[in-house]
Amino acid sequence: MASEFDLIEQYFTRRPRHAELGVGDDAAIVRSSPDHELVISTDLLVEGTHFFSDVEPESLGWKVLAVNLSDMAAMGATPRWATLGCVLCPGLGDGDPPAPTGAPSSSGSWLEQFSRGFFACADHYDVDLIGGDTTRGRSGATTFSVTIIGEVPHGVALLRGGAQVGDDIWVSGTPGRAALGLAHLQSRTELNGAHLAHCLTALQRPTPRIELGLALRKVATSAIDISDGLLADLGHLLKASGASAKLQIAGLPDAGLARDAYLSGGDDYELLFTSPPALASEIVALGQSLELPLQRIGAVCHGQPGTLSVFDQHAANITPKRRGFDHFS
Amino acid sequence: MASEFDLIEQYFTRRPRHAELGVGDDAAIVRSSPDHELVISTDLLVEGTHFFSDVEPESLGWKVLAVNLSDMAAMGATPRWATLGCVLCPGLGDGDPPAPTGAPSSSGSWLEQFSRGFFACADHYDVDLIGGDTTRGRSGATTFSVTIIGEVPHGVALLRGGAQVGDDIWVSGTPGRAALGLAHLQSRTELNGAHLAHCLTALQRPTPRIELGLALRKVATSAIDISDGLLADLGHLLKASGASAKLQIAGLPDAGLARDAYLSGGDDYELLFTSPPALASEIVALGQSLELPLQRIGAVCHGQPGTLSVFDQHAANITPKRRGFDHFS
Repeated sequence: MASEFDLIEQYFTRRPRHAELGVGDDAAIVRSSPDHELVISTDLLVEGTHFFSDVEPESLGWKVLAVNLSDMAAMGATPRWATLGCVLCPGLGDGDPPAPTGAPSSSGSWLEQFSRGFFACADHYDVDLIGGDTTRGRSGATTFSVTIIGEVPHGVALLRGGAQVGDDIWVSGTPGRAALGLAHLQSRTELNGAHLAHCLTALQRPTPRIELGLALRKVATSAIDISDGLLADLGHLLKASGASAKLQIAGLPDAGLARDAYLSGGDDYELLFTSPPALASEIVALGQSLELPLQRIGAVCHGQPGTLSVFDQHAANITPKRRGFDHFS
Repeated sequence: MASEFDLIEQYFTRRPRHAELGVGDDAAIVRSSPDHELVISTDLLVEGTHFFSDVEPESLGWKVLAVNLSDMAAMGATPRWATLGCVLCPGLGDGDPPAPTGAPSSSGSWLEQFSRGFFACADHYDVDLIGGDTTRGRSGATTFSVTIIGEVPHGVALLRGGAQVGDDIWVSGTPGRAALGLAHLQSRTELNGAHLAHCLTALQRPTPRIELGLALRKVATSAIDISDGLLADLGHLLKASGASAKLQIAGLPDAGLARDAYLSGGDDYELLFTSPPALASEIVALGQSLELPLQRIGAVCHGQPGTLSVFDQHAANITPKRRGFDHFS
């Protein structure tokens, strides 16, 4: 088996574009921009909990970074630097499975494909991989840990706690797609055509809403990504803001898996944000310029902090009991 | 089982002293000092590879942070902020084992004890825990990932690549203690008295040499910590510096476990550094002021980059074949 140092050198050492010193010393060195704050987040992706052992490694490499970039988007920050910790385990990520006959595009070792996806995401969002650690673990326990560091001008970061009573509540894209894609892969539902493709892309190669986050600095009072599910993350935002909310969502699917996925499906990387009603037309225009649907789904109101109610098109209360995804529940 | 959010709130949420925003939003926000560079490092600690399931949790909490602080020491950086990723697994880190009768000092849940050790180290070195992630994993695969961020004035960080031919090579403390402590626990040797205590402390509650690293900015040409073992890390330093080295170490133990541990034992967090011979008396004085032994163990010389030779007190070449510890070998 290749040594730890060989693996790092072979797959993860690239000359950084925005760092004084990258992979290869005891630590990396970077210089932050004047008059900016640093925005820092860490996420874990664990085999069996966040991905399966038969996951396509290039997509996983993309996703491992993308879910962290989503946290930068939710803060209105520009992502700059990342570190990557890899616990590689027998059966996944430690060998060179033979390429399927006639499938040269999937050739190369698991780790090579993983790193290709990781750097595709890093390049797309202009992020430098500046360090990390690689070690071996037990079968079935492959784990990735990414820390992302971004920058935001002093005092303009988007926080969870800024929502005001009367604000509109908005969400980007179509929540629930990742959960539906997972349900399809687990044969709990059957999707097809473009809808299937959208749901699998949302699950396997999510798009962090970096551009949206940067644009929201000027118009949003609060923001969060909905990686724990729309209602759960809205609950976190409302609790931090000391407010309640009423939701009435045009086009919300009828009761069943699709509605549950929309309201409570985890693993979505859309942004949920609040904004004064006077800015609604600006937000509609922003969605058009980004070619990203932005939908008003409700309003912030007085009430017990963190609580919320969901109404259907007939104004009947349909608030579900289970709000979202918790690895420990 | 407690939810992910409860665990974070209960054990890992403390008001940061040096951050604009700590745990609890999509990301943390910090402000770096003017005219300083950021120094960033990530380390993984994995059950079965870096610690055993019966490890004392308070010591492990200390060590998880301390090994990262050691990277800051090796760069001459002041540690400031840390993030912590925890993959908690059945059998360790996810339950509340009953406290042994008559041992109230070890009461409290595993995670509570772990966090106590982590914060003891954080407080001692004035580091803020500003974020992280907690998730569940498979039995036997408990994993911790720490990213540490420090600061150093522009241009004065200690790098691996600065050693000059003719420089002295120095090491702090007594290398090999952690490996000997581990050998004792595994019944491969039997230590006792103060020596046993020193070795177990080195293994379980290592001291990152932060003060030494800060002082070395003025006198060292290069530095590295010896977490992979003295010879392996000296090899990394020499390779980066394009030089070779000859070692002759006063007091090196005779052939056997003690010598192997000194030269090749991993998990030591002493610093190895190089410095011009003219500064030798300053370094001796520095060791006295820090009450930390600093020993000259050799010199940098011309030769194939990364190579080195070790001689005993009779000038016989005793260079061992195996240099250090590699999780993948």
